[in-house]
Amino acid sequence: MGPQLNVSLCGELLNLEKLVVEKSASVEHWLRDSFNKNTPPFYSSVDLRNACFKLAPVDTNLFPAGFNNLGEKDLACTVQAFMTSVEKRCPDVENVLLIPENHTRNKYYLESLGNLFSILSNAGLTVRVGSINPELTQDLLIEYKNISSEKASFTIEPLLYSDGKLKLKGFDADLIVINNDFSSGIPPLLKKVKSQVIMPALDSSWTFRRKSNHFAKYNQVAKEFCEFLGADDWLINPMFEHCKKINFRNRQGEDCLNDHVSDLLKKIQMKYKNCEINKKPFVVVKADSGTYGMGVMTIRDASEIKNLNRRQRNKMSKIKEGVEVSDVLIQEGVYSFETFVNSGKEFVAEPVVYVVDRYVVGGFYRVHSERGLDENLNAPGMQFYPLPFENGCQFPALSKDPNSTTNRLYFYGVIARLAAIAASKEKIDN
Amino acid sequence: MGPQLNVSLCGELLNLEKLVVEKSASVEHWLRDSFNKNTPPFYSSVDLRNACFKLAPVDTNLFPAGFNNLGEKDLACTVQAFMTSVEKRCPDVENVLLIPENHTRNKYYLESLGNLFSILSNAGLTVRVGSINPELTQDLLIEYKNISSEKASFTIEPLLYSDGKLKLKGFDADLIVINNDFSSGIPPLLKKVKSQVIMPALDSSWTFRRKSNHFAKYNQVAKEFCEFLGADDWLINPMFEHCKKINFRNRQGEDCLNDHVSDLLKKIQMKYKNCEINKKPFVVVKADSGTYGMGVMTIRDASEIKNLNRRQRNKMSKIKEGVEVSDVLIQEGVYSFETFVNSGKEFVAEPVVYVVDRYVVGGFYRVHSERGLDENLNAPGMQFYPLPFENGCQFPALSKDPNSTTNRLYFYGVIARLAAIAASKEKIDN
Repeated sequence: MGPQLNVSLCGELLNLEKLVVEKSASVEHWLRDSFNKNTPPFYSSVDLRNACFKLAPVDTNLFPAGFNNLGEKDLACTVQAFMTSVEKRCPDVENVLLIPENHTRNKYYLESLGNLFSILSNAGLTVRVGSINPELTQDLLIEYKNISSEKASFTIEPLLYSDGKLKLKGFDADLIVINNDFSSGIPPLLKKVKSQVIMPALDSSWTFRRKSNHFAKYNQVAKEFCEFLGADDWLINPMFEHCKKINFRNRQGEDCLNDHVSDLLKKIQMKYKNCEINKKPFVVVKADSGTYGMGVMTIRDASEIKNLNRRQRNKMSKIKEGVEVSDVLIQEGVYSFETFVNSGKEFVAEPVVYVVDRYVVGGFYRVHSERGLDENLNAPGMQFYPLPFENGCQFPALSKDPNSTTNRLYFYGVIARLAAIAASKEKIDN
Repeated sequence: MGPQLNVSLCGELLNLEKLVVEKSASVEHWLRDSFNKNTPPFYSSVDLRNACFKLAPVDTNLFPAGFNNLGEKDLACTVQAFMTSVEKRCPDVENVLLIPENHTRNKYYLESLGNLFSILSNAGLTVRVGSINPELTQDLLIEYKNISSEKASFTIEPLLYSDGKLKLKGFDADLIVINNDFSSGIPPLLKKVKSQVIMPALDSSWTFRRKSNHFAKYNQVAKEFCEFLGADDWLINPMFEHCKKINFRNRQGEDCLNDHVSDLLKKIQMKYKNCEINKKPFVVVKADSGTYGMGVMTIRDASEIKNLNRRQRNKMSKIKEGVEVSDVLIQEGVYSFETFVNSGKEFVAEPVVYVVDRYVVGGFYRVHSERGLDENLNAPGMQFYPLPFENGCQFPALSKDPNSTTNRLYFYGVIARLAAIAASKEKIDN
């Protein structure tokens, strides 16, 4: 038997998937309605964890990379979704300036950027790439392999500022598309932009965004959705706590962290007991504005907090671009019981779903051989193997069989859209 | 060598395709702008003819069948396009009543209807099918094979009228989707509908619609598009004339027809001469509100008009549902030089492109073995072989090579969208 994915849902979660598949028209109507209340994110990728008894988003990225990991079959829908997004937000735009992350040596990121460049171009835009990194002072030609395995290239150019606009030499754009989460703050040049549309809006960057706010909104959305379907929202909703003013290096806030971890572990234990789940609870402590899998640790017992060694505390104290961690999210750990079996070996597989505007456009699995079922796969330098979804996850199968791959991926697409709806609600109270 | 499609563009048309591919971002911007001026048709299919030196739409259907002929890979984009269409037009709708053609014995039509039913369902709607045919008095279960070759089924139910609405037993819809071109008039029951949205609007049915009006609008759109690109619009624009008050049976209006055919043949001859095209011109005479390939004939010499025998005159005098022909369109004939070669035999292949709202979602070739290169393939009882497009036609290839299949199909998609824009302008002056 060739490589295959192993997962089966069980208990109440299986019933919920059945319900979502059977009532897909009502579910879509509910989603349509919710997306109409707030403008969906320009684009997003949602990391899911499937524990068979629980399926939940654990991170929602509003400046997604990984476009190189989508399947070739996903391309047309992705392009079409960006077309719709542009038509709705800024139909007059033709020229687009794409501002990427500053690190220009990560081959995988550059492949993602190249594919994003090509997708936006195919959506009917004239796209050029300009780096906000002041160290980039001359054109940089990037060669990459696109999703269709063709050799392609694009150029990263230095940015110029004039007349309230960010420009490139000989190129004046109406729209700036950001693919940089600005963990370490909005660059001054970008703040000076007056007469260009910027998407996504800068308040969705990690300069301002907080995971705890996202999951508070997700908690609302998941509750509303499950109330609508008559299901327990815990099945798709990770519990969480929140600690402020933590300093891992000098152990400030350790008690707060200890108490919240302890509380959350107890809550999970109680839920597991009620649902007759015979697993050990764990929590994941994450920097509240962190990304790239930095500033993340798995805790199985509150005592581990006091016993962190210097290396572990250092690791938790900084995230991307050297930003100091002070607020943390303590999130219910959701096991990854989805695995990819190849030549008799079993690898953890974590789904990532891409949502453009309100449309699920595709996704892939991060397949990892080394890591345990309760650890974070999005770790720096991780070597995962991307495995594009077998099907689109836009709609359910003709058969209502809840074990069909198509139906499971559709269910993933629904959960990912709930996360996108949550993201669309983040800014309102801020 | 296996089956393959043979076509190459030449001369000015090849240059135009090159231009469209190279300037695709500007072309898309132009299309976006044009679609924003008038609401695009809910759905449409556009029949194209490729003569290598000219590529033009010859018919634009606003109640398309043939959904069974799309490729499986086109499904996700088609569903997504209908989602967008519904969100824009009637976001609150959940229940949809689909009203099909009255003939319930045409296996191919029922396969198309089944696939349309399934596509609309997957777009997040609760769809049921109700026939306006008073002869249908009880539920009719239809089994069919869907695009993914799965066995599927749907039921055609008799319609009920109450409270200003068309309903089914136990089913109250907010939206009526029409897949019937109403060649013989709008059914009285449908005219009485007061509190339901009807899409497409009834004024786009053949009760009101005229091919001559469509091609007059297409003429404007093609001219604007070609002016924008600096090309001769004849390359994509079929010339036409128009005769009213024709009666084929009693030879009324024969002189008018004769003169216009003669004029048009001369115009084509002159154009061929200027472009050094060594082909015999021909025209196609079509009922102005006809469809289904009925009431269509190919004329190579004006004298043929006077020499029509009784059988030919009878054939031209009636279209679908026995409607008498009185107005005709005399359209420049566009050769079909695109062929499909299989086992050394060459078959004429005519592209049909599907557009949902403003999105090209896919298409197929009608491959026909018997018919000549200058005859109408959409003939009653025709046995064509549908061949789904190899690629989507949403965007050009990475290579700008004008001979790449992807680029040719993208060009087809652009021309089809010009026809959809023309259709969106039809109602304005009526």
